Amino acid sequence: MLVGAVTPAPGPVRVAVLGCGNVGSALARLLLEDASGIEARSGVALALAGVAVADPHRARPGVPPGLITGDAKGMVDDPEVDVVVELIGGLEPARELVEAALAAGKPVVTANKELIAAHGAELAAKADAAGVDLLYEASVAGAIPIIRPLRESLAGEQVRRVMGIVNGTTNFILTMMSESGSGYADALAEAQRLGYAERDPSADVDGHDAAAKAAILASLAFHCDVRAGDVPRQGISAVNPVDIAFAGQLGYVVKLLAVAERIGDEHPADGSPAEVSVRVHPAMLPRTHPLASVRGAFNAVFIEGHSAGELMLYGRGAGGAPTASAVLGDLVDAAHHLRSGVPARTVARAEAHLHPADDLRCAWYLNIDVLDRPGVLAAVAQVFGSNTVSIRSMEQLGMGDEARLVFLTHVARQGDVMATIEGLRNLEVVEHIGGMLRVVGDEEDR
Amino acid sequence: MLVGAVTPAPGPVRVAVLGCGNVGSALARLLLEDASGIEARSGVALALAGVAVADPHRARPGVPPGLITGDAKGMVDDPEVDVVVELIGGLEPARELVEAALAAGKPVVTANKELIAAHGAELAAKADAAGVDLLYEASVAGAIPIIRPLRESLAGEQVRRVMGIVNGTTNFILTMMSESGSGYADALAEAQRLGYAERDPSADVDGHDAAAKAAILASLAFHCDVRAGDVPRQGISAVNPVDIAFAGQLGYVVKLLAVAERIGDEHPADGSPAEVSVRVHPAMLPRTHPLASVRGAFNAVFIEGHSAGELMLYGRGAGGAPTASAVLGDLVDAAHHLRSGVPARTVARAEAHLHPADDLRCAWYLNIDVLDRPGVLAAVAQVFGSNTVSIRSMEQLGMGDEARLVFLTHVARQGDVMATIEGLRNLEVVEHIGGMLRVVGDEEDR
Repeated sequence: MLVGAVTPAPGPVRVAVLGCGNVGSALARLLLEDASGIEARSGVALALAGVAVADPHRARPGVPPGLITGDAKGMVDDPEVDVVVELIGGLEPARELVEAALAAGKPVVTANKELIAAHGAELAAKADAAGVDLLYEASVAGAIPIIRPLRESLAGEQVRRVMGIVNGTTNFILTMMSESGSGYADALAEAQRLGYAERDPSADVDGHDAAAKAAILASLAFHCDVRAGDVPRQGISAVNPVDIAFAGQLGYVVKLLAVAERIGDEHPADGSPAEVSVRVHPAMLPRTHPLASVRGAFNAVFIEGHSAGELMLYGRGAGGAPTASAVLGDLVDAAHHLRSGVPARTVARAEAHLHPADDLRCAWYLNIDVLDRPGVLAAVAQVFGSNTVSIRSMEQLGMGDEARLVFLTHVARQGDVMATIEGLRNLEVVEHIGGMLRVVGDEEDR
Repeated sequence: MLVGAVTPAPGPVRVAVLGCGNVGSALARLLLEDASGIEARSGVALALAGVAVADPHRARPGVPPGLITGDAKGMVDDPEVDVVVELIGGLEPARELVEAALAAGKPVVTANKELIAAHGAELAAKADAAGVDLLYEASVAGAIPIIRPLRESLAGEQVRRVMGIVNGTTNFILTMMSESGSGYADALAEAQRLGYAERDPSADVDGHDAAAKAAILASLAFHCDVRAGDVPRQGISAVNPVDIAFAGQLGYVVKLLAVAERIGDEHPADGSPAEVSVRVHPAMLPRTHPLASVRGAFNAVFIEGHSAGELMLYGRGAGGAPTASAVLGDLVDAAHHLRSGVPARTVARAEAHLHPADDLRCAWYLNIDVLDRPGVLAAVAQVFGSNTVSIRSMEQLGMGDEARLVFLTHVARQGDVMATIEGLRNLEVVEHIGGMLRVVGDEEDR
């Protein structure tokens, strides 16, 4: 079973940490300050062998200067290092260093969603070949145990859908817009002021971060190889306070969701491969849905399984200490596995068959400003009908010369909804197409 | 590492199921009807070797008669059986059969909270000695992954408190009382009608079931040996609609909680052992607390950790299919471990040092009917004061010749609150002491 795994020397398992940002410094402090507690609780002794940083001359509070190095590759290769923790983030040099560690027979723990969502399958294969662990609990939803439950607790379960609020920044912004009526720009500025959003917020608000996590969740839940680039995404910058207010009146909240679901049967009768849909988009969720009560910067992942029913795992999705906690759980695993010589189970990954986005079916909320003239509603309804999109409810609000029409559709094909939107844009009486939100988690939708 | 573990024959891992109630029959159907799906997803082939029942002549829908036997012990001893699943429940003969399986070097998966809460430490020691698994994810909170996250994901984490809604029957009753204003007796009758409560509901409503689960959670979270009998419990039969209504007005909901928490430091400076408090009681939780939104027969476990912060794991806590899903996750584990020869990690269990209940500190809600006379409030307040229980808020409602006084206290020692109650009972002007509920999960409480 083992190809190149290094047998640890007796004594503590020696841990190299690459990167010393929020997570790296929190982890280093845990390993330095709570070593005996960790050993008593977990049954393994972990020793911090060193911390590799880009600028070794900068002081790192809580980390003795003697443990700091600028030579990450040297530390990975050091025979005095048993396990490598990669907390640099991004693709390079993280990938190169992770590969070097695996090639040297050293288990790797990483919090790097970008790396796993882009190269997870190849890295997992290299870890398998070396007979060592590649663990990445911290890559999705911070402290929340989600990777291990999907990989182990639900290993036999037929998962139908995984929906996550996996980006705290956008959930903070949407919660603020929802609870205080702020506009998007104000809520974003507040998130930036509080340190929840970056100066350049695009990785969060445009859904890139959530898409990487969606790819990781889909790969584990459906045992296939989904990459971040495969995930269609729609961010939150076009979500309007008006739409959030309407959602509220209709009994919904607006959340940015990462969704991974199986479409159709696991084993289609015609022998075609099972299809998976993976995407990131804002959605209207019924206020009674468990995900609806996930507020602020918290994260949660909602899992629907054939036997298990509905599960939700909730907690802090980011931050130094919570993410370090997830890394520590993986480190304890890696240390136990080094001792036993048997690495963690991996999930077989088949080729992913992605369901075409146009064929996705769900209900929609649409908000359309039209000229307030006789016959307008008939013209608008005609566009819906000719695209076979059935209207569930409509509300009309007068606004001077204009009227605002708010529609909820029945479940419809996404391609047909997009064609409806296109048709509406071409109507002379349509002034503006405002909010467009998928409705998710309703009874009708299941 | 292995003492008596049986090396599985090539081919599927052969599973004996003891008991064929809701969970046993759901598991048997999964193993029979989805064998190839389970193998594809989990990487292990599981074959149902047989199902042992008390009455082998009764038909079991979905299970071929040839697989049914009345001889549980014979099946445990059968060399054609690799893994034993115990779903009989109760202490005997479950214990005897589990011990026989472990002694024969066969891993055991069980959903039996009563057995684990009474004999978990001894059985775990026997499993360790045999080098095989004893897995019991299904014993607490049905389909919700909670045992594995505590044992593995949070192995290094310094857990401060675990609070669970772990009994669906009582949560259904309290939810109904809260949402429809029903009295306890009506809500219980409805729970019985829907099959959520037994004819004799005492195991649920008196907190026995929750106490067993509290003992299991405490043992894992704090690495010590807590038994069901160590857990003080208060059930829900004395909870009044009046108290639930008051709680609602004050911004709280009433839930039956299983609580396990460390009191004071993990390593007290004076060298004394760390103390753990474990108990089951109804409590008032702020409406904004994540556990407050757990409705009906759902379960959830809320974990507070030093680094991880707040986590909540939510899902279906009972029912055939959800519980079978948790058993299946453990079975997949046991099968992988049989193949690798390395069983699951176990949690070291030290002797438990239980915090005296009288020394527990929290805020209280008290509801007292008094004669409506001048000076009564002073007399009542005097009893609180002389027992050093500080009043945070008081509301007085006239009711003819009587008045109802509703108190919220500041955080107080439980022994002092009990002495206050005793003192109040001795006051001539006090007619009746109604609701008494602990207030949990408030800011002040943390």
